[in-house]
Amino acid sequence: MSTEISKYIDALTQYVEVEGIKYAYRSLGKQSGTPLLCLQHFTGTLDNWDPIIINGLAGERPVITIDNAGIGNSGGTTPDNVQDMAKTAIKIISALGIKKCDMLGYSLGGFIAQTIAATKPDLLRKIMLVGTAPQGTKALHSFPQLVEKAFQQEGIEVYLYIFATKSEKSRSLVTATFMRLMERKEDRDKDTGMPSIQAQISALTRWGTDTVTIKLSDIKQPVMIVQGSNDEMMDSDTSLQLFKQIPNALLFYYPDSAHGSFFQYPEMFVKEAGRFLDYFE
Amino acid sequence: MSTEISKYIDALTQYVEVEGIKYAYRSLGKQSGTPLLCLQHFTGTLDNWDPIIINGLAGERPVITIDNAGIGNSGGTTPDNVQDMAKTAIKIISALGIKKCDMLGYSLGGFIAQTIAATKPDLLRKIMLVGTAPQGTKALHSFPQLVEKAFQQEGIEVYLYIFATKSEKSRSLVTATFMRLMERKEDRDKDTGMPSIQAQISALTRWGTDTVTIKLSDIKQPVMIVQGSNDEMMDSDTSLQLFKQIPNALLFYYPDSAHGSFFQYPEMFVKEAGRFLDYFE
Repeated sequence: MSTEISKYIDALTQYVEVEGIKYAYRSLGKQSGTPLLCLQHFTGTLDNWDPIIINGLAGERPVITIDNAGIGNSGGTTPDNVQDMAKTAIKIISALGIKKCDMLGYSLGGFIAQTIAATKPDLLRKIMLVGTAPQGTKALHSFPQLVEKAFQQEGIEVYLYIFATKSEKSRSLVTATFMRLMERKEDRDKDTGMPSIQAQISALTRWGTDTVTIKLSDIKQPVMIVQGSNDEMMDSDTSLQLFKQIPNALLFYYPDSAHGSFFQYPEMFVKEAGRFLDYFE
Repeated sequence: MSTEISKYIDALTQYVEVEGIKYAYRSLGKQSGTPLLCLQHFTGTLDNWDPIIINGLAGERPVITIDNAGIGNSGGTTPDNVQDMAKTAIKIISALGIKKCDMLGYSLGGFIAQTIAATKPDLLRKIMLVGTAPQGTKALHSFPQLVEKAFQQEGIEVYLYIFATKSEKSRSLVTATFMRLMERKEDRDKDTGMPSIQAQISALTRWGTDTVTIKLSDIKQPVMIVQGSNDEMMDSDTSLQLFKQIPNALLFYYPDSAHGSFFQYPEMFVKEAGRFLDYFE
C-alpha cells in the first residue's frame, strides 16, 4: 500500500495466502505505528464493521480487518472451535508481515483475542474486548436457542434482536449502524454461508461449555473491555468477571444497549479506544 | 467573580451565608456554561480535590467546590445523616444563585448527589458519581471498623489504606495525588474535627443500613459512574448495581485501584468527564 487510505469504504478487499488458502482483508489508516487488527463477531464479515468506528480508529493508526477461514471472501473451512480460529488468525497476521499488533476482538472475535493473548502473547501490544465473555460463560449454553429465535425474525429485526435492546432509542441507534453497513456498494464481502454459521454456533457454544484453559490473570497487556448494559448473548455481567481477572484492564459499560454496545456510541468508543491505545499503560 | 481563575490553587476560599451560617467554597473556571458543583468524600475538605482534576474540569466550565456543614472552614454542625447533608448542599447551591448545575459526588458526596437527584431533580442537569454506592450497601455496615483500622496507620498510610490498593503502582499513584493536595500552602481549609468525623461515620453507616428510599430507576439525568477495581469501603460491585438501576448511565471501572480510582488516572477522568458533560445525552 503506497497511498494512505483514510476511509473504510475506499479500502479495497485484498488477499493474503496462507498454506494455499487465500484470506480476505482490508487495510487503511496511518502507515506508521502499531497496527490494529480487528476480529469480527458471529456471522460478521469485513462489511460488518461500523465505518464510523473503523474510520475513527484509522485516523491515528493502521487498521486491518480480516475474515477468518470460510467467512466472507476468505477461503478455507470455518472451524467449529475458537482455538483453531485463533491459530488461523495468527497465521494470517504473520503472513501480513506483522510481528506485533493491537487487537480489537468483538464478540466471537473477543474469544479469539483472549485465546491469542494466552497462546501467543508476544504478538499483542494492547487488547480491546467488546461484547465478549470469558471461557465457561453459562449464557452461551443457550446460544443455539438464542440464534434460532433471532433467525425467526424478518429483515432488519434479525439484526436488532441481537444487537439492540427493546427500547426505541437503542433500536434506532442500531438501525443507524445497520444503514451505515449498507453504504458500501462495490467490492462487498460474500455473506456468511450456513455451514460456516453452524460451525461458528458450535464454537460459540463450546466457549461456554469447554473446560477453562485460559488464565486471564496471566494477561500482561493492558486490556480495554466494553460492554452493553443488556447483552443477553454474552450476559453483560461476565464483562465484570473479565475485568476482575485481567490485571490491567479498563471496563466501560454503555447504557441501554445489548450486543451492539459500541455501535450505539461509535464516536465515544473511538475516543476511548484512542486514549487507551495511545496513552494508557 | 470578574476575572477568570484557571487554577484551583489561585481560587481563594469564599463564603456564602445561609440562615446565619457561613459556608466555605471555591469557584474557578469558565464563566459561562452549566456550573459543576463538587461534593467531597468522608473527612475531605476543599483541599482534598486533586488539582489535576479540578483544573482540567475548569478548563471547559465553571467549577465550584463546597464544604458542607461543620467541614473545613464552613460553619454549622455536621449532621449524622445524608438527608440533612443534602438539604444543606441544596441551600448552599441556591444561595450561590445557581438554578441548575452538574454535580460531581465523590464517595459520601455521591450519596448526597443521589439524594439530591431524588429530592430536587430539577437542580441537576448531569451527575457524576465516583467511588460511591447505593443506599443499603452492606459493605458500609462495617464502615466504622474500616475507619478504625485506617486511623491506626501512621502518616500517609492512613490515606493509602483507604485510597490505594496494596500494589506498588497504586500506592505510588495515590501518593502522587496526596503530594498534589499539599501543593497549596496559603488559604488552606481547616482539617475536619473529630465531632464532624463521628457524625460522618454515622451518616455513612446509616446509608448502608437505612431503608432504601431512593428509587434510582427514577433518575432522569445522564449519570456517569466511576469506580476502582478494589474499593473495599464501597464494595466495587455496587457500582454495577447503580449502573443497572439508573436508566441512562455510563459505568467506568479503573484497574488496580481502591477508593481513589480517579486520583490514579486524573487526566483520563478529566477527558471522560468532559465528553460526558459536553456530549453525552
